[in-house]
Amino acid sequence: MPETIKYVLSEDQMPTAWYNIQADLPTPLPPPLHPATHQPLGPHDLAPLFPMELIKQEVSQERTIDIPEEVQQIYRQWRPTPLYRARRLEQYLDTPAKIYYKYEGVSSTGSHKPNTAVPQAYYNKQAGVKRLTTETGAGQWGSALAAAGAVFGLEVLVYMVKVSYHQKPYRRALMEAYGARVVASPSEETHAGRTILAAHPDSTGSLGIAISEAVEVAVQDDDSRYALGSVLNHVLMHQTVIGLETLTQLEMAGDYPDVIVGCTGGGSNFAGIAFPFMGASLRGERSVRVVAVEPAACPTLTKGVYTYDFGDTAHTAPVVKMHTLGSTFVPEGIHAGGLRYHGMAPLVSHLLELGQFEARAEQQLECFAAGVTFARVEGILPAPEANHAVKGAIDEALRCKEEGTSKVILFNLCGHGHFDLQAYIDYHAGKLQNTAYSREAVEAALSELPVLG
Amino acid sequence: MPETIKYVLSEDQMPTAWYNIQADLPTPLPPPLHPATHQPLGPHDLAPLFPMELIKQEVSQERTIDIPEEVQQIYRQWRPTPLYRARRLEQYLDTPAKIYYKYEGVSSTGSHKPNTAVPQAYYNKQAGVKRLTTETGAGQWGSALAAAGAVFGLEVLVYMVKVSYHQKPYRRALMEAYGARVVASPSEETHAGRTILAAHPDSTGSLGIAISEAVEVAVQDDDSRYALGSVLNHVLMHQTVIGLETLTQLEMAGDYPDVIVGCTGGGSNFAGIAFPFMGASLRGERSVRVVAVEPAACPTLTKGVYTYDFGDTAHTAPVVKMHTLGSTFVPEGIHAGGLRYHGMAPLVSHLLELGQFEARAEQQLECFAAGVTFARVEGILPAPEANHAVKGAIDEALRCKEEGTSKVILFNLCGHGHFDLQAYIDYHAGKLQNTAYSREAVEAALSELPVLG
Repeated sequence: MPETIKYVLSEDQMPTAWYNIQADLPTPLPPPLHPATHQPLGPHDLAPLFPMELIKQEVSQERTIDIPEEVQQIYRQWRPTPLYRARRLEQYLDTPAKIYYKYEGVSSTGSHKPNTAVPQAYYNKQAGVKRLTTETGAGQWGSALAAAGAVFGLEVLVYMVKVSYHQKPYRRALMEAYGARVVASPSEETHAGRTILAAHPDSTGSLGIAISEAVEVAVQDDDSRYALGSVLNHVLMHQTVIGLETLTQLEMAGDYPDVIVGCTGGGSNFAGIAFPFMGASLRGERSVRVVAVEPAACPTLTKGVYTYDFGDTAHTAPVVKMHTLGSTFVPEGIHAGGLRYHGMAPLVSHLLELGQFEARAEQQLECFAAGVTFARVEGILPAPEANHAVKGAIDEALRCKEEGTSKVILFNLCGHGHFDLQAYIDYHAGKLQNTAYSREAVEAALSELPVLG
Repeated sequence: MPETIKYVLSEDQMPTAWYNIQADLPTPLPPPLHPATHQPLGPHDLAPLFPMELIKQEVSQERTIDIPEEVQQIYRQWRPTPLYRARRLEQYLDTPAKIYYKYEGVSSTGSHKPNTAVPQAYYNKQAGVKRLTTETGAGQWGSALAAAGAVFGLEVLVYMVKVSYHQKPYRRALMEAYGARVVASPSEETHAGRTILAAHPDSTGSLGIAISEAVEVAVQDDDSRYALGSVLNHVLMHQTVIGLETLTQLEMAGDYPDVIVGCTGGGSNFAGIAFPFMGASLRGERSVRVVAVEPAACPTLTKGVYTYDFGDTAHTAPVVKMHTLGSTFVPEGIHAGGLRYHGMAPLVSHLLELGQFEARAEQQLECFAAGVTFARVEGILPAPEANHAVKGAIDEALRCKEEGTSKVILFNLCGHGHFDLQAYIDYHAGKLQNTAYSREAVEAALSELPVLG
């Protein structure tokens, strides 16, 4: 039986700086706009939301930004994470391809989210902030921020999408074990929440609504700031530790990826694994093919429009240029809850327009089947979000088999599925189905795009 | 803020042999007896249950037994596991003690159980076995064996204690995701199960009953063998990779433990962390104080009787000399389900009689409080079983503070709590209570001890 091979870095091989892909863009990122005035946002507009260090990172054009020593120290609790060569999966698929996967499930909360939760908590603590507000869907981000807040002694207030709040009590319990306060969104605690509830008393919530609530509370309290788990430039940059480590690990293995596969929701884990390699491609050093896999129920990159849109439902968060299905679009309740955002990170959207990667949409039944195969062959049960990357990687490996080419395939296994067993129960019971997104709902949502002057 | 320090081994520093403490015992372990004849068991008696390599390990007096290369390769997927110095916990407790913890939650199924599931599956596969049967309580063991069976292409049949089967559907789902068949015990599928159900139709099951069912099925099918997740000598020996790695990691740190704390159910994680150090103590090389922490609801070591007793309820498994509360004793349904076995590993029991460690019993509310403190300060949520070790280590650290002594405390964080959020929900909702064990129930169970000739 072929072994799974693990590539381990020593701590002194851990990256000491994040990679900022903005430095290598051939055309600059379109600026974010103020939700009311539609004028480009300045640092002072963002100050009620974020500490100045994160605002600087959001707009920085520097290629690297040093990771503070205190953040590195906390990263070291679970980083560097392992890179695996999936020899057993290669044999099972009978493919000439080499399959590598980076595994972020070894973090304290089981996903890649702590990579940005820790620096966000750190910079807020440094700035004297007392409380962080945020939203969460499936709960990966909320639990990561709850854990980081606990370590730095910050209060954490999480608006959790109501359907998840009730369907995923265990994720909620994890946040509460870390001392966070978790509120079902839409709630009666905010103007945004009350407005939604007045119009839709039975609203099950959405990420867009939860963002509106978290932003509103942060803006109104000078001791509070807002934290976002994906989408923003600085969040994506923090995740590049994943790809930077992988670069070194693949050097150890004597390989370089021909294809990188990542799943996309808001874009942060995709950016984390792919941006360091795409940067080398943009600089003309070495090219790589990159594939984003998104859920067919929320096909932002493959079916969305690239335009300025609101980041949240109440239209109080910044307006950004991105691939969007419309800020009021609420996708079907697929189990990959972390991939249900109506938009996409502006950086990821910009890079798609620049032709730097391709995107495809996959149905959840095929993704779960890929995840179960992976679990039985490689031993690790992936999160439903990560199953999209597994599915994409397996398809690439099978294509290599058809073509008789031995490509190097890399993907990011961004989280374990230990919190997602209800999804696997439903899958095995035949209760899941493939769902098309509603074209009508997307068209209706896109009719509410901001009208720019 | 002080950092958590991680000690990382390279793969070539990973142990290549397990440590067998039987080689260093001043008096030999009392032999296991046949359940019917009460005569010492020979290898041929065990052959229907285990492959010959494991039977040899069970009785071996060799100090080290080589870990097969194929097992080492699979170990390397998550091993060597990190050893941490809990500097933030030390600061929080304001203790002069140094607290180290080994973390086994990074394994594929989140606990230490794969350390023995993998070699057991390997030796059975080598022997041509097609199916493994086993029991599981909380589900840590069952999911580890399901994963190992999947990797080696073995069928796995798990008898899961009925109360857990219904209360912990997510652990069951994990086993099923790995392809195992999971049956609620007592079941109608075995004579042992039907006998219990005839007398107690509403029986919620126990580990002792589930063992009886799994043993019965294995014995009746020549292609099947039985696998046990704790208690047996070879199982404890497989777990010594934990302590052997820790020895090397503490050398890197320039420390040696003054106190080792482990939680005890069947004894395997305790043995894993403590035996390599106790061996040095038995050989007169270096002494160490060792503390076992068990649940007050199932106080095998502190309140049990050291005598020959049945390993299972139907009295078909071997009779062994151990600390026992009686084979028909069913403890309260505490959330640390992995610590609810009526007996204790014969090796651990023998070492207690030899005065090689001390034992104490703790209530679950205090253990959960310790676990929540640990999660908020160190960032990792422990499994309820592991909370007993956390509680013991914190108490030792606080004693150091009182005494003004700077001792080196080591404990094993044997699993994460990601599957145990219902327990934390109940704890935070005030639904848990401390429960005394029933003296009457223990006395009744002890009245059924085997009468030896």
